[in-house]
Amino acid sequence: MRTIDWLDGHIVAIDQTKLPGELAFLDIHSVADLVEAIKRLAIRGAPALGAAGALGAAMAVRGEPAADDLAADLAALRTARPTAVNLAWGVDQALARRAEGPDAVLAAALAVLEADAASNRALAERGADWLAARVQGPVVVQTHCNAGALACVEWGTALGVVRSLHERERLRHVYVDETRPLLQGSRLTSWELTELGVDHTVVIDSAAATVLARGLVDAVVVGADRITANGDVVNKIGTYPLALAAQRARVPFVVAAPESTIDSSTATGREVEIEVRDGAEVLAIGGLPGTATLNYAFDVTPADLVTAIVTEDRVVRPALGERPA
Amino acid sequence: MRTIDWLDGHIVAIDQTKLPGELAFLDIHSVADLVEAIKRLAIRGAPALGAAGALGAAMAVRGEPAADDLAADLAALRTARPTAVNLAWGVDQALARRAEGPDAVLAAALAVLEADAASNRALAERGADWLAARVQGPVVVQTHCNAGALACVEWGTALGVVRSLHERERLRHVYVDETRPLLQGSRLTSWELTELGVDHTVVIDSAAATVLARGLVDAVVVGADRITANGDVVNKIGTYPLALAAQRARVPFVVAAPESTIDSSTATGREVEIEVRDGAEVLAIGGLPGTATLNYAFDVTPADLVTAIVTEDRVVRPALGERPA
Repeated sequence: MRTIDWLDGHIVAIDQTKLPGELAFLDIHSVADLVEAIKRLAIRGAPALGAAGALGAAMAVRGEPAADDLAADLAALRTARPTAVNLAWGVDQALARRAEGPDAVLAAALAVLEADAASNRALAERGADWLAARVQGPVVVQTHCNAGALACVEWGTALGVVRSLHERERLRHVYVDETRPLLQGSRLTSWELTELGVDHTVVIDSAAATVLARGLVDAVVVGADRITANGDVVNKIGTYPLALAAQRARVPFVVAAPESTIDSSTATGREVEIEVRDGAEVLAIGGLPGTATLNYAFDVTPADLVTAIVTEDRVVRPALGERPA
Repeated sequence: MRTIDWLDGHIVAIDQTKLPGELAFLDIHSVADLVEAIKRLAIRGAPALGAAGALGAAMAVRGEPAADDLAADLAALRTARPTAVNLAWGVDQALARRAEGPDAVLAAALAVLEADAASNRALAERGADWLAARVQGPVVVQTHCNAGALACVEWGTALGVVRSLHERERLRHVYVDETRPLLQGSRLTSWELTELGVDHTVVIDSAAATVLARGLVDAVVVGADRITANGDVVNKIGTYPLALAAQRARVPFVVAAPESTIDSSTATGREVEIEVRDGAEVLAIGGLPGTATLNYAFDVTPADLVTAIVTEDRVVRPALGERPA
């Protein structure tokens, strides 16, 4: 089962807003519906957005659309969310074969899905190797948000590393930050780990630093939405304070992400546009309606806090001055 | 209006679980009811717990109770919550006049309330002086949890500093961390600031570090549940990562608390028992029922991250090696 796939001429994707209560699938027949699903985070996670971009481009070029309609569709798709680099990257990957016709674009899109699944497996093995070499005995991992199969086509990045450790019987426990406001940790990561039979504990985001300070964790492993040329990591809001706490506790802070997440054209995290989402997400529980909010969806972890970036091809150590691009 | 007071032979307190939707008062006629109100956080905040301890002791000694009953009541009251030092301190303050009879105990308890109100005013002015001397123009403050009038008898500690700045027209804005899991920031601090007409913005706890990193804040000001002899600060979970982020952003991290919060008999935060609360508080929104949690109610901010502790008597600078006791 894939998080997102192409079936009988349309896109099928898990509706991630329904989990953990219900495993429901969306049938998406238009780019407009796809963009809406991305905006409301029914489809989310940087690698899954790459797949969505590619499949969306394949959908857009079918049926001989007018040039203006096609351009509008592709623009809406590229910019459905501003921070992850993978969405536009996926569009470009599929459109690279546009001269050969719609079937070639679809083939290119499906190749993006295959490549994502393969790169996830490869980077997960590399990450598990890296951790297994540095931690004696079974590893306790802490993670934030959801960088699991649900964030990708299948397998996962940060949770892919967790799964590879679990397969090797080298995993002891996972601490899962709940990840306010949309609870990708307590809703999605906890659901995935339950399905896999992995022991885990959910903590509020504010408690993550104390879990680290108390020596409960061997390594933090997270995904990334964008990695800039200098090794700054743009990821779900809450990643940066987790990295600060890991540094203070002398715990390795590891980013597991495919090469497609690396944005070599952007020098540092300072230049990345950070999505600010509707305050209703924050105020929905407990808040006074009408109160001002500042609902950043992502943050920037400076390169000096990043012990290792693990991709399908290599390990880069930004804290030691190594650059991914 | 006081958060907690003695009226017609019993305790009256705002039910803080009902805010911001409703301003409701509890009439408490027994120590058992008081303990229950403290455990479910209807009465909360270190200074308010000191007042509750004192008034509870006054209630316990009325009506010539049997020695065993009295001892059981006082033990339950002292240990209703384990982390704040003020609860047992309030009990002791009132019982100091026990030899003089129940009316003297009540008078001692009411003196605790008076002293709390006076010390809040004094430390708030001192904190406002300290900030006004260090920040040019109106000050932007970030705070966590609720250290306002609701956490005290009246006026507040951290929010007392905010109010004193506001009175002087030296306050620009307040960033309020929502403070999961019980939302004392988005429910209580936001309500207090709205009542006071203070401009403020609510952010999720995970976004606090980014608000600091982006240079939006002049000073972090928080309260404390216990300050150990070396200057470690035990406060609501989430305070420690906020202090890490403030240090990284070179923003002063200020703790506003009465002298009664200083526990000179405890050397460091490492020796303080940290309350772990029911995981239902975490899983109530979005979580999978039955999932393991680790719901720390407080954390420890190491002294080296604390720029200043401001009390009614003095300013101590732990980051410079000064010790409160």
